[in-house]
Amino acid sequence: MSKIDLALTDLKKAFPEDFTEEQIAKGQTLFLKELAYDAHKFYGGKMMTVPKAGMYGPNWFNVWYTPGVSRVSTTIREDNSASFELSNRGNLVAVVSDSTRVLGDGDCTPPGGLGVMEGKAFLMKYLGGLDSIALCVDSYNEKGEHDADKIINFVKMLQPSVGAVNLEDISQPNCFKVLDTLREECDIPVWHDDAQGTGCVTLSGLINALKVVGKDIDKVNMAFFGAGAANTTIMRLILQAGADPERVIACDSRGGLHTGRDDIKADPRFYRKWEICEATNPKRVNSIVDAMKGADVLISVAVQGPGVIKPEWVSSMADKSIVFACANPVPEIYPYEAKAAGAYIVATGRGDFPNQVNNSLGFPGILKGALIVKASKITDNMAVAAAYSTAKTAEDRGITPESIAPLMTEREVFPREARDVAMQAIKDGVARVEMSADEVYKKAEADIQEATDLTDKLMELGFIKEPPMSLLEGALQRAIDQVK
Amino acid sequence: MSKIDLALTDLKKAFPEDFTEEQIAKGQTLFLKELAYDAHKFYGGKMMTVPKAGMYGPNWFNVWYTPGVSRVSTTIREDNSASFELSNRGNLVAVVSDSTRVLGDGDCTPPGGLGVMEGKAFLMKYLGGLDSIALCVDSYNEKGEHDADKIINFVKMLQPSVGAVNLEDISQPNCFKVLDTLREECDIPVWHDDAQGTGCVTLSGLINALKVVGKDIDKVNMAFFGAGAANTTIMRLILQAGADPERVIACDSRGGLHTGRDDIKADPRFYRKWEICEATNPKRVNSIVDAMKGADVLISVAVQGPGVIKPEWVSSMADKSIVFACANPVPEIYPYEAKAAGAYIVATGRGDFPNQVNNSLGFPGILKGALIVKASKITDNMAVAAAYSTAKTAEDRGITPESIAPLMTEREVFPREARDVAMQAIKDGVARVEMSADEVYKKAEADIQEATDLTDKLMELGFIKEPPMSLLEGALQRAIDQVK
Repeated sequence: MSKIDLALTDLKKAFPEDFTEEQIAKGQTLFLKELAYDAHKFYGGKMMTVPKAGMYGPNWFNVWYTPGVSRVSTTIREDNSASFELSNRGNLVAVVSDSTRVLGDGDCTPPGGLGVMEGKAFLMKYLGGLDSIALCVDSYNEKGEHDADKIINFVKMLQPSVGAVNLEDISQPNCFKVLDTLREECDIPVWHDDAQGTGCVTLSGLINALKVVGKDIDKVNMAFFGAGAANTTIMRLILQAGADPERVIACDSRGGLHTGRDDIKADPRFYRKWEICEATNPKRVNSIVDAMKGADVLISVAVQGPGVIKPEWVSSMADKSIVFACANPVPEIYPYEAKAAGAYIVATGRGDFPNQVNNSLGFPGILKGALIVKASKITDNMAVAAAYSTAKTAEDRGITPESIAPLMTEREVFPREARDVAMQAIKDGVARVEMSADEVYKKAEADIQEATDLTDKLMELGFIKEPPMSLLEGALQRAIDQVK
Repeated sequence: MSKIDLALTDLKKAFPEDFTEEQIAKGQTLFLKELAYDAHKFYGGKMMTVPKAGMYGPNWFNVWYTPGVSRVSTTIREDNSASFELSNRGNLVAVVSDSTRVLGDGDCTPPGGLGVMEGKAFLMKYLGGLDSIALCVDSYNEKGEHDADKIINFVKMLQPSVGAVNLEDISQPNCFKVLDTLREECDIPVWHDDAQGTGCVTLSGLINALKVVGKDIDKVNMAFFGAGAANTTIMRLILQAGADPERVIACDSRGGLHTGRDDIKADPRFYRKWEICEATNPKRVNSIVDAMKGADVLISVAVQGPGVIKPEWVSSMADKSIVFACANPVPEIYPYEAKAAGAYIVATGRGDFPNQVNNSLGFPGILKGALIVKASKITDNMAVAAAYSTAKTAEDRGITPESIAPLMTEREVFPREARDVAMQAIKDGVARVEMSADEVYKKAEADIQEATDLTDKLMELGFIKEPPMSLLEGALQRAIDQVK
């Protein structure tokens, strides 16, 4: 009898009984990877395009295409904003990456990001009721370098066709310039999910974690490991939410960030890091080991683990310490190891461990809310509103050390975010449409429900075929063989 | 009782009985435009994205996204061609336009092309079983000019994410450089539908029209009105199929194309037009009026009518004359008018008149065939093979003066094209996969069937809602009011 089912209900049980916890953790990751390969090949990717408008007879070709469609062209020519209503643009998000920092796998060459970006498009639809296309672009210039300006030009050219852009997995320093320039110069929301998205979801997890341990955000000592697009934005949002900069110490691969870091000061492309150097770490602490001593909170978005954060560093933290180990796909330290070393709350980016603070909890609802009110941008205020919204969803049903964040299956998180983000957009004056909180909530909820109902129906009717169990079993066996 | 039904079965009957044929023709176009506006607004566009892969439980998020998807990223990084199998890229066509020549409506500003390009994406799916995204790009450079190099850069950056690119509605002269450069420098098929597509479908119609009138392609006199991307490519393919260049006279808005046209010679961006000047019209005929005198065939892709081609010009043509009046959305002369003036066969780009030679008959099958064998380009040979394939489909069921081309509802035309194009790709050495004609046919047929079945199911289940009859009636009334 097979130890796994199609729903992948309990992966731990699928492994041999004599496996240690470490072997199971490794095996689980390996199994998910092996299965991902087979399943992607089985389906030929994850997303398709289908009509959303009816075909009731051949003459409808003349409505959807020439000659009828001419009226749509001329109407949009007279008033470009009509494009949001007369085409699918108003519900469409482009996920744009140059695949130079694909989750934990670094530069994957331009098409190498397609699996992740198409996955994002999948989540955009399934969780947020948004249509979405994955665009992994070739950002090499004539000198053979990844060129921020090329990405900026591409997105500006793309702008008339989409309702929002979700930037993703662009390595630093290009990511800073690309996001800041596009946010400034585009008329549609440009969201950098690694930065604002992770920032917003991490802040949300931290809000609840601090509630659980009974500490105040302005009195805790915090260590940050990694200072890329994600962690610098997490810091910005956490400081905005009331943290004390003098209690914050951030480290990158070269040591602590502080005003003595001439290397960062010298390179204007790293202006976001220099802002952190100026604002935090007045004692110029120079290593993550020292930063973690006595810290209440560690937020790490560094490099893939395990073994990147040592258990003894965690043991040196304050009582009831909180550890966010958010490298993908393998956290800097496995939760069971951090717990054994004394951490009270551990969060990761992974859905197969407790306390997932993966940004998938944020972007579907945030972008849905922004698109419903046709926002021209997503302000930091809107990101912070989303963080409080997410935290509240979890709090309302009860939070514990093993459950500080909503699960991706607690679906009400997304329409609630959409509502709270849309309301903040109206407050901030960036919405093009006035709607009530309730109207936004209902629209978001209905669209999301329709997206999951549609997916369920496609499975039920066989348009999405069930993978054979042999495919799952083969992947499991290969995972077991690799751990043994 | 309403005079129209949801299927739009017989539009002519929907108009008042005292309407003349001219009023009905006008009213039909106006109705289709009015309905297009309302229907596009009702649905919010025409295409959406949906999952093509199953969600059988929350752990599948970890297969489709992190951590599992990491294996997809690293596999594609090692071998970029794996992206065609592990993502939807292998079945995905981007329809790219800068909206500078949108059907008959000219420059519609960048988002103005969305209705047409999304329509193309709709046809791509419904007729060709291909996924497709509409990208209307902003091609303005810093000088405020539409810049061919910007479009070229955009498509090159986009290339890693799609299986093929369909260029569309780019005005001349940019269209020539954009297509020729991209065809040369991309590793995926780049199809310029206004040029190659219209060329291929027009050649196919001409092959059958000549059969009906019993004339040989190398002995007929031909007049071409308009010398844009479409007509210059039509000429190129027709000459390749055996027409006599000395019997060909082409005219643009300034007169006949011949070696005396120093204006064309002087501007290297018009090199395609200069090729025509050198090859045809040895007597330097200088007007379309003179070119049509005694001509057996007129092929016009000029400007929107009616009234652009005068009935008396048609009367001056040879016996059993053939008129292709292909401007969109309104032909240069209405078919009933050309017929009254003596034309024996009249073809237009319109589906609501007989003999539609709209390129929708070509691209879905041609691109499907190219993608099935993972062709790196679409050669002129492949376009000519598609023309003969299309002509043969109509011939097999019988051709008449009112029916020289397959209808868009004669669905076998698409898998047959896919098969014949794929076989030619293998012969021309541009296919990456070897398959038999039968294998290609079956794959294309199954995918197309699935696309229409899926659309039907979405309508049946209410995911695609039926528009209220009041919407159709309102559009009809507005059309009638405008004609009266």
